[in-house]
Amino acid sequence: MIYLDAAATSPVRREAIEAMFPYLTGAFGNPSSHHGLGEQAARAFAEARQAIADVVGSRPDEVIFTSGGTEADNLALKGIALARRAADPQRNRILLSAIEHPAVLESARYLQRVHGFEITELPVDAEGFVSERSCVEALAPDVALLSVMYANNEIGTVQDLPGLSALAARHRVPVHTDAVQAAGWLSLDTGELGVQAMSLSGHKFGAPKGIGALVLRSPTPIEPLIHGGGQQAGLRSGTENVAFAVAFAAAAQLAEAERVEAAARVSALRDEFIQAVLGRVPGAQLTGPASGRRLPSVASFCFRGTHGESVLLELERRSVICSSGSACAAGSSEPSAVLLALGLSAELAQTAVRFSFPSAVTGTELAAAADAVVEAVAALTRFRGAAPRR
Amino acid sequence: MIYLDAAATSPVRREAIEAMFPYLTGAFGNPSSHHGLGEQAARAFAEARQAIADVVGSRPDEVIFTSGGTEADNLALKGIALARRAADPQRNRILLSAIEHPAVLESARYLQRVHGFEITELPVDAEGFVSERSCVEALAPDVALLSVMYANNEIGTVQDLPGLSALAARHRVPVHTDAVQAAGWLSLDTGELGVQAMSLSGHKFGAPKGIGALVLRSPTPIEPLIHGGGQQAGLRSGTENVAFAVAFAAAAQLAEAERVEAAARVSALRDEFIQAVLGRVPGAQLTGPASGRRLPSVASFCFRGTHGESVLLELERRSVICSSGSACAAGSSEPSAVLLALGLSAELAQTAVRFSFPSAVTGTELAAAADAVVEAVAALTRFRGAAPRR
Repeated sequence: MIYLDAAATSPVRREAIEAMFPYLTGAFGNPSSHHGLGEQAARAFAEARQAIADVVGSRPDEVIFTSGGTEADNLALKGIALARRAADPQRNRILLSAIEHPAVLESARYLQRVHGFEITELPVDAEGFVSERSCVEALAPDVALLSVMYANNEIGTVQDLPGLSALAARHRVPVHTDAVQAAGWLSLDTGELGVQAMSLSGHKFGAPKGIGALVLRSPTPIEPLIHGGGQQAGLRSGTENVAFAVAFAAAAQLAEAERVEAAARVSALRDEFIQAVLGRVPGAQLTGPASGRRLPSVASFCFRGTHGESVLLELERRSVICSSGSACAAGSSEPSAVLLALGLSAELAQTAVRFSFPSAVTGTELAAAADAVVEAVAALTRFRGAAPRR
Repeated sequence: MIYLDAAATSPVRREAIEAMFPYLTGAFGNPSSHHGLGEQAARAFAEARQAIADVVGSRPDEVIFTSGGTEADNLALKGIALARRAADPQRNRILLSAIEHPAVLESARYLQRVHGFEITELPVDAEGFVSERSCVEALAPDVALLSVMYANNEIGTVQDLPGLSALAARHRVPVHTDAVQAAGWLSLDTGELGVQAMSLSGHKFGAPKGIGALVLRSPTPIEPLIHGGGQQAGLRSGTENVAFAVAFAAAAQLAEAERVEAAARVSALRDEFIQAVLGRVPGAQLTGPASGRRLPSVASFCFRGTHGESVLLELERRSVICSSGSACAAGSSEPSAVLLALGLSAELAQTAVRFSFPSAVTGTELAAAADAVVEAVAALTRFRGAAPRR
């Protein structure tokens, strides 16, 4: 099997399993308990928070563990927008890029539907970059929050966060970024990026599914999403998932240590793969940036004359595992909203296939995958082309 | 070590670890992915949901996995209240017992503060039972939701949920119950209990910390707490924590299979322990019900003339691990709101100690624990008694 669906999820790293195992067995205390077992768990949780803080350039009390990237996005959007408006009632608008993850978009729609916020979607160009000019035009005293995804999960476009953050800062608008796909590939330094809030998800870089974090730079007032016993300084109640926090920290540290080398190596392999597919598959069209500010791990295409799901099946028969778009619009057969925002037709968007590479991917695997793509698309278009002639 | 803090958290059962391990290693797919690895994960998740449904007497699509009991309580309170009011704007009031978990109480306070709901707290008697009469008086056409904890985490009081649910049904008021402490000891059959929504937490009965569920009987409209990619039929977005859902199901099945026998055995040991403590410790006072409708696993006391935290330390020095009240009011040194609601003075409430038993607890352990309690309280009251005389 050649697994090229790393943007959907990744295997848990052995080091992450080993790190968390004690907290699933003997060291099972509740971090809120005032006895030795509890204090042991509290220490492990605090160390995990420190490790994440080191990776993102924040203080440990600026790291809020969540159940994943989706909860982190919900906490950021709802929590910051509600707190900002409570302090300044005119701030009633949320700015989003047109290619946000559903966790961001649906949180904004909830704020619109239930809390009366207004949403302005910032358009993107044909490669998926947010228009700086539309951002300048939209930033105004009524904006509570700007949310722009760091690296897009479907097409890999990497936004200019420092530039957008500088614009937002002039209007004292906090910036949130969903950095779920960027983790392990791009710098997560919140200071360099200029963002006030950043969502992370463990299972994209070798931690288990079910753990993530919101990094919230101080002072950014926030209304909690989950209220209760006051854990995590009252910002996220609920007994802490100590084992997964420890696994998340272990995976994040490893990913950060390997990041620069992995990004360079995989970017080169990605470019070879893109060239092979574009050169050998008739009708193949790259989606997202042609070069430069593209996630090292994502190569995404439309294959004219096919259906993405059919390409996926043909590739799986050839032991290549990838995705038709994103795994996050669960069970949906609608064309990707991200591809439509780029200006693609609904028909072409239905032909999309995304290859997303684990950091350990090899050139041999990608050469075999490119062969499989050539065969898969040929099989489908031969059949399609032949059928009407009968 | 004699671990008598099972209401705070429990070790993960070996069977739960074994059940989840494949989903942390080879079977790491994303359940939303349309390929073999993803479908394997989706099947495991569906089977876990079916297993929980079997335990609670519901359909599998009525089980919503969450990151724990606190998230389940938040989803129930906020989600049901908001949906109920959206359908019927006069339903603007939430009824709670006066001894709810902070996850319920703080969710209600959020609804009050941000959404303008009103809260009515139903008083409890000296043993912690909700007054049926006050419930009858409070049920009215403006009530959106009644939430009453099945078994109290601090004093073990088991409410008459079938009776309260029958009252609520007359006013078409949905009933939520936090059943986190009841799981493994009492029947969780939602049909018998008559509730529309029930919160569960895995780590109280041998699953890891970080997984729980809300059982939501159909048709009970609900606004999701976490929005996004539409997983779990749109009711709880976010990539599913497959491994922990599988562990949760394994632990819940085992706990249910052992429940009736464990409850009888541990109830008898609990009564012996209570008699030993009340008979041998001067100034000891049981909190919660004297007999009958008390959780098999909880024995809670006030020890006049001591401070609960000091008793805890003395007991830990004697290798007995327990809690001064609950682990869920993290780091708080306030007297327990539950004990105050029973009518205890703040001074007496500060002397509270809770012993909560794992299902495998033995008579030998509890005899040793009773000896330790006698010694610990004697050491503290001797010291206290002596000090003023000097």
